[in-house]
Amino acid sequence: MALIVQKYGGTSVGSPERIKNVAKRVAKTRAQGHDVVVVVSAMSGETNRLVALAHEMQEIPDPRELDVVLATGEQVTIGLLAMALKDIGVDARSYTGWQVAVRTDNAHNKARIENIDDAKMRADLQDGRVVIVAGFQGVTADGNVSTLGRGGSDTSAVALAAALKADECQIYTDVDGVYSTDPRVVPEARRMDTITFDEMLELASLGSKVLQIRSVEFAGKYRVRLRVLSSLEENGEGTLITFEEDENMEKAAVSGIAFDKNQARVNVRGVPDKPGIAYQILGAVADANIEVDMIIQSAGSEGTTDFSFTVPRNDYTQTIRLLEGLRDSIGAIEISGDDSVCKVSIVGLGMRSHVGIAAQMFRALAADNINIQMISTSEIKVSVLIDEKYMELATRVLHKEFGLDKA
Amino acid sequence: MALIVQKYGGTSVGSPERIKNVAKRVAKTRAQGHDVVVVVSAMSGETNRLVALAHEMQEIPDPRELDVVLATGEQVTIGLLAMALKDIGVDARSYTGWQVAVRTDNAHNKARIENIDDAKMRADLQDGRVVIVAGFQGVTADGNVSTLGRGGSDTSAVALAAALKADECQIYTDVDGVYSTDPRVVPEARRMDTITFDEMLELASLGSKVLQIRSVEFAGKYRVRLRVLSSLEENGEGTLITFEEDENMEKAAVSGIAFDKNQARVNVRGVPDKPGIAYQILGAVADANIEVDMIIQSAGSEGTTDFSFTVPRNDYTQTIRLLEGLRDSIGAIEISGDDSVCKVSIVGLGMRSHVGIAAQMFRALAADNINIQMISTSEIKVSVLIDEKYMELATRVLHKEFGLDKA
Repeated sequence: MALIVQKYGGTSVGSPERIKNVAKRVAKTRAQGHDVVVVVSAMSGETNRLVALAHEMQEIPDPRELDVVLATGEQVTIGLLAMALKDIGVDARSYTGWQVAVRTDNAHNKARIENIDDAKMRADLQDGRVVIVAGFQGVTADGNVSTLGRGGSDTSAVALAAALKADECQIYTDVDGVYSTDPRVVPEARRMDTITFDEMLELASLGSKVLQIRSVEFAGKYRVRLRVLSSLEENGEGTLITFEEDENMEKAAVSGIAFDKNQARVNVRGVPDKPGIAYQILGAVADANIEVDMIIQSAGSEGTTDFSFTVPRNDYTQTIRLLEGLRDSIGAIEISGDDSVCKVSIVGLGMRSHVGIAAQMFRALAADNINIQMISTSEIKVSVLIDEKYMELATRVLHKEFGLDKA
Repeated sequence: MALIVQKYGGTSVGSPERIKNVAKRVAKTRAQGHDVVVVVSAMSGETNRLVALAHEMQEIPDPRELDVVLATGEQVTIGLLAMALKDIGVDARSYTGWQVAVRTDNAHNKARIENIDDAKMRADLQDGRVVIVAGFQGVTADGNVSTLGRGGSDTSAVALAAALKADECQIYTDVDGVYSTDPRVVPEARRMDTITFDEMLELASLGSKVLQIRSVEFAGKYRVRLRVLSSLEENGEGTLITFEEDENMEKAAVSGIAFDKNQARVNVRGVPDKPGIAYQILGAVADANIEVDMIIQSAGSEGTTDFSFTVPRNDYTQTIRLLEGLRDSIGAIEISGDDSVCKVSIVGLGMRSHVGIAAQMFRALAADNINIQMISTSEIKVSVLIDEKYMELATRVLHKEFGLDKA
């Protein structure tokens, strides 16, 4: 008998029929003797409908009021799922974010969970009830409705699992686990039975969309046992995200490959090589609320230096314009860039103990004439920036090179 | 400078465009220097959509969970209206039922308001904000979401006006006031500038659907100045519901005519005329949760007595079946009835001082060969039960007879 938190996303609760299926799955877990807390998203399409309504009212909807409107999506689902469970004889009770209460900070539309009161949930579990909690939402200290931002339901589930010290947090989604890379790009991609937190974190932050990165961070921080499962399959084991580096892991240097098209490269050439110049350039970009990802600095000619960095593609034009305005004050010879680039990354805990992984990666790409524009590394990943037209090719080449297509 | 509560129903907020129109109207009242608290319903169609979803989950949706689902309708509208107001430069803040808080009893789906905390609203008004409150909903002492039942937004508005001691509660609807009778039946029907509470209460309970009867009762109890206005017209004065019987009132004996098709007549003939027999018959009906409206008892032959009473048409078959079952124990000779009847009523404070109004009504109906099956009277109304095929004719005849078509 365990305490299990199950999270079902918008697609899994996208119609009355699907909500009934979720109820059956919850009832099955209950019948196995487990206590169950269910976290649900809004029915698929509902959040977009509400966002569209809000945008008809205001070009940039008021953040506080947007949260009031958006939070209704999950509130509908929790009530419907409670009814569906009661209809098949399983006692259940629903809670909104403020009812639990899931206390957050005041950052509307992207609030962070500060603490969760588990008293009501504990009492219901004690009484044999399934507890259903609206994902994605919380309440501020002032009693305002807050939401956690897109994908926030994953974070809600993990936070509830941490607060309740649940034995496992199961994220049900429309894929059956975490893959070595996107199966739409590489048909040979394999589902992994386990993956470590560090790897999952790198994969999530590198553009793999199975789990929201904040939920993975949260799970890592509070040591929540996390599993990704398919809500469509009956008996899948999914992928368990582990804290332990198990034996198998040691064998493979690379466990997954991620890619990200939301990249643009900016070059600032020929600035004087003096202290503070990096801050002058990158500080201005940060002040404009633009997130810089990869950064390289290289020596230019005659006491000058060159900077290259990447920004989200949507911010490319603004970044170039901003730097053109600074050109005289920073003394740059040229501002240029390219917004048709992409980032491809290899991730693996095994890199720690294997040498030459990066070199192997570069050689494999060179063999297929894929030019590398920038390189960035961490302890367990190597990312390269390349022309976006080679993205699929590079992913396939690397998937094969590191033996990920073999069971 | 006054404090005004304005309530807009589902049709008035039925689309983004209409919500913007409501915002303009609120802004106009604000520009006149008034403090404004706005109460809104769900966008038209939304409550029905949510009810349908609930019924797909459970044949009889769990009352607590149904309220969780239904309350989202108004929550969407308050957020959208706040955005629309901010978009035209009017500061505003929205509140759900639990945020205010509007405290109710635990009767889910038909909760009654117990008290309202006005602290947050007062502070916002003080700061120059328009306050927007979700109608129809509240919160129980246990922190559960409750709803007041269909039409509950009128009651919310009146209760808020009472709690805030507002100068006026304006109910915006798709008609421009209270009419002497339904203009679809009698084209000559006149809009009344004023009507007294007692009259409005009789008209509301007799089937006139302009205002929900509970809201009128509430307004009477807390002496809230209530006005019914059109949300479509620009400068209408609507109908003011007054406590004072003004001079004009004295002149007209009858101020309005109501009709109600939701009636069925039941006859119990030839029961022994002994104490307790009325209770035996009507108590059994009440125990089955069937509401009895008109009741008459008349002497039968040889120590027996006859009962006739009316019930809502939907309960007719059940009532007949129930009485057939009791027939032997009550010793009735015959159980019969008719479910194609209707009730037509004249209402007027002037009846108190005018004599012969009832007689005048019966004579007018007789002149058009309309047979009266039952009669029921109160201090300010006379109702007759007639064949439903004469309903429109009777209404027209009486409207003319009592001079209601004259300005």
